[in-house]
Amino acid sequence: MTTLSTKPPSGTRDFLPEDIRKRQYVTGVIREVYESYGYEPLETPAFENIETLLGKYGDEGNKLIFKILKRGEHEQTGQADLALRYDLTVPLARVVAQYQNALPKFFKRYQIQPVWRADRPARGRFREFYQCDVDAIGSTSPIVEAEQLAAMATVLERLAFTDAVIQLNHRALLTALIDVAGIPRALEGEALVALDKLDKIGRDGVVSEMSARGFPATAGPALLDLVASSDASQGGSEAAGGNDWVLERLERSVAGHETGARALQDLKDILRLVAGTAAAARVNLAPSLARGLSYYTGAIMEATVEGIGSLGGGGRYDGLIGMFLGRDVPACGFSLGLERILVVMSERDQFPPDVSSGAVDILVTLWDATTAQHALRLAADLRAGGLRVEVYPEADKLGKQFKYAAGRNVAFVAIEGDEERTGGTVAIKDLRSGEQTAVARNEAAAFVAQRLHSRPRH
Amino acid sequence: MTTLSTKPPSGTRDFLPEDIRKRQYVTGVIREVYESYGYEPLETPAFENIETLLGKYGDEGNKLIFKILKRGEHEQTGQADLALRYDLTVPLARVVAQYQNALPKFFKRYQIQPVWRADRPARGRFREFYQCDVDAIGSTSPIVEAEQLAAMATVLERLAFTDAVIQLNHRALLTALIDVAGIPRALEGEALVALDKLDKIGRDGVVSEMSARGFPATAGPALLDLVASSDASQGGSEAAGGNDWVLERLERSVAGHETGARALQDLKDILRLVAGTAAAARVNLAPSLARGLSYYTGAIMEATVEGIGSLGGGGRYDGLIGMFLGRDVPACGFSLGLERILVVMSERDQFPPDVSSGAVDILVTLWDATTAQHALRLAADLRAGGLRVEVYPEADKLGKQFKYAAGRNVAFVAIEGDEERTGGTVAIKDLRSGEQTAVARNEAAAFVAQRLHSRPRH
Repeated sequence: MTTLSTKPPSGTRDFLPEDIRKRQYVTGVIREVYESYGYEPLETPAFENIETLLGKYGDEGNKLIFKILKRGEHEQTGQADLALRYDLTVPLARVVAQYQNALPKFFKRYQIQPVWRADRPARGRFREFYQCDVDAIGSTSPIVEAEQLAAMATVLERLAFTDAVIQLNHRALLTALIDVAGIPRALEGEALVALDKLDKIGRDGVVSEMSARGFPATAGPALLDLVASSDASQGGSEAAGGNDWVLERLERSVAGHETGARALQDLKDILRLVAGTAAAARVNLAPSLARGLSYYTGAIMEATVEGIGSLGGGGRYDGLIGMFLGRDVPACGFSLGLERILVVMSERDQFPPDVSSGAVDILVTLWDATTAQHALRLAADLRAGGLRVEVYPEADKLGKQFKYAAGRNVAFVAIEGDEERTGGTVAIKDLRSGEQTAVARNEAAAFVAQRLHSRPRH
Repeated sequence: MTTLSTKPPSGTRDFLPEDIRKRQYVTGVIREVYESYGYEPLETPAFENIETLLGKYGDEGNKLIFKILKRGEHEQTGQADLALRYDLTVPLARVVAQYQNALPKFFKRYQIQPVWRADRPARGRFREFYQCDVDAIGSTSPIVEAEQLAAMATVLERLAFTDAVIQLNHRALLTALIDVAGIPRALEGEALVALDKLDKIGRDGVVSEMSARGFPATAGPALLDLVASSDASQGGSEAAGGNDWVLERLERSVAGHETGARALQDLKDILRLVAGTAAAARVNLAPSLARGLSYYTGAIMEATVEGIGSLGGGGRYDGLIGMFLGRDVPACGFSLGLERILVVMSERDQFPPDVSSGAVDILVTLWDATTAQHALRLAADLRAGGLRVEVYPEADKLGKQFKYAAGRNVAFVAIEGDEERTGGTVAIKDLRSGEQTAVARNEAAAFVAQRLHSRPRH
């Protein structure tokens, strides 16, 4: 009838039920945690007017934006007037401008929605993927950073990333270190981009990149020395370690540098505030953390897991959110790498068992179409008892129905023949053990529920 | 800095937090109910390859599809290779073909995602809106229809549509009535389209539309008489009413008509199965229910509320889902009008009170920046007690913070001064009553939780 491909478009995915259950579990935890911190949900349209997006992501970004043809007779001209959302930050900036009088003075929002980028698809890189952003608008207080670090730590904990740490640094501190190293201010952006690659290309790689970009010969090594000397994870010294140790080193490095001193005070404030929160044991000062993007203006943070890398990050960016208002608006936020988190959680088996259990708790069997109304009544009763119930829709051999249930990872089947009906019971078979029990009908739901919840964790 | 409009694109909406809370409440109920009936979640990409969609919705539909420009050098040619999802049915058909070996024999899925149509925006008509579909693939058993009617009834009940009814009819029964009325088979489609307007344009309107389309002079009135004589809601007779009464009339109307007799048997089976379910008291046979779309092949259903109209509907369509497989695949499903349901629920105040309550349960005040770490510690403790907590991020006058909380519809504020801290207490102020209570710190979360849950329902 047709020879069309039925695959989803290149770089996109269909999410089948078991995928969605995992995704919903993760986003459910994230929502719950963010809401407990007073963040509120926001959603914006999939597409924006094209002028809203063009020019916001640089030349490279402009090319990666999916553009939508004008409708009607304009279709012929090839003119585009709309474009698919490229990130969640520009839409937030638009919302902040559009609803400035309706939004609270301190607007704390989270947004979990897909974005689209016409990148070349590759392993782990998609053209449609979810972003998961949390941002606090309207305050420069370090309480914002501290609460975000706590929220990030709580999410990681709830998702069983017991080994995750959060690296914390400050853009103004990096500015100071760059100054002290003798790198001209005009090269600051390039210094950050190079430093951002330290994990990937190592010290020598960063130094030669800096030389290639025309940095003064001693400046690159000087910056790397400054960073390394205060980096607990790179110190190698027995005495190295702990945020106080790092602070002490940094204080020496930026002594007398006004911007550096202010940044250090900021970090100290944040660390003091974090002490009573879920993030207390997870936040490590990391002077080498640069984060590539140019728009950060204050603290920067990144959640990492040894051997895995980054699970997300962010920081303060006081100059961006006001882009449509024409004035600076304080903002601090971070983004979790939802797709990455899902991959790692699957690999490391971090989902609770009920997330990967079957679609339903019990299958009501049917082997005689003339008694189907009883099967539906039984299903209704089991649902009223809180169970997720599927009714096998066609009269068939019981063995076949058991096999169907097992294939769908359903643990229990209910069998109600004439005999059971007369006696007011129902036979419940546990497909994992093979055990079959006659249970009073009005106790059947509780019987199954109790056994479901006592399932061994895998 | 810019004179760009910051409104969302024409026909689309930004969903601010209070909108999302309502939407999440409704979709949460729908998900929970569908999952209790064994339906599993599916999600597909926002765009499809353009050939997947073109030609599936008729000439009118082709024009309303948002088309995406090819990337790179192709951008100049105006060529489109992708298009935004227009409904959830064609993607389902694609998924059924693509994963035919991985999906269960009886694939029951729900899908709640936005679709995009370049319709002229109008009140209640959007270019981006959510569809909410539930479909069972792979069985022709009337158990499928009965369970879907029960699921639909359960959703309506849980969303407080206590006055909703579900109209039930059968396409093959309409075919029989059209036959009996003397309308040529070739005009069946047009007869259904005309009949579908009965509610809107009345009997005379339908009759004159049928004349205008060249129906035999007596055929239109004959069909309307057949329908009216068996329609309990239109009978006007004292004796009229009840599904048995309608069935009896219909039996007389299609006596000796084989297709009609089979359709009636189908409806009787469905009604018998529904008797033990949540839909028992809600399902009304409605011989005038036509539903405009041509693809239905069996039972059709529609949820309606007096004075409001349709909240959603669907039916059996055994010829459509196999479009990419090149063979018929049995399917039955319905779609809830999510946007309409949200409007009506807001108008009729059908949301539980906590959906429209504030974003957080309690605001922790701050009037001395030097004690901010205690505020964060208190917030952490209150969150551990299950509360949603916001910390006022800047030291400010208490009155201003109370006003901020009240403006955000937050019921409680916590005040912890030096005195409270020394005494191990915290002052909890209920902004609704003005009452302030000193509570032991470790009992503060429970104190607030208890009062939140005993809030009067509005």
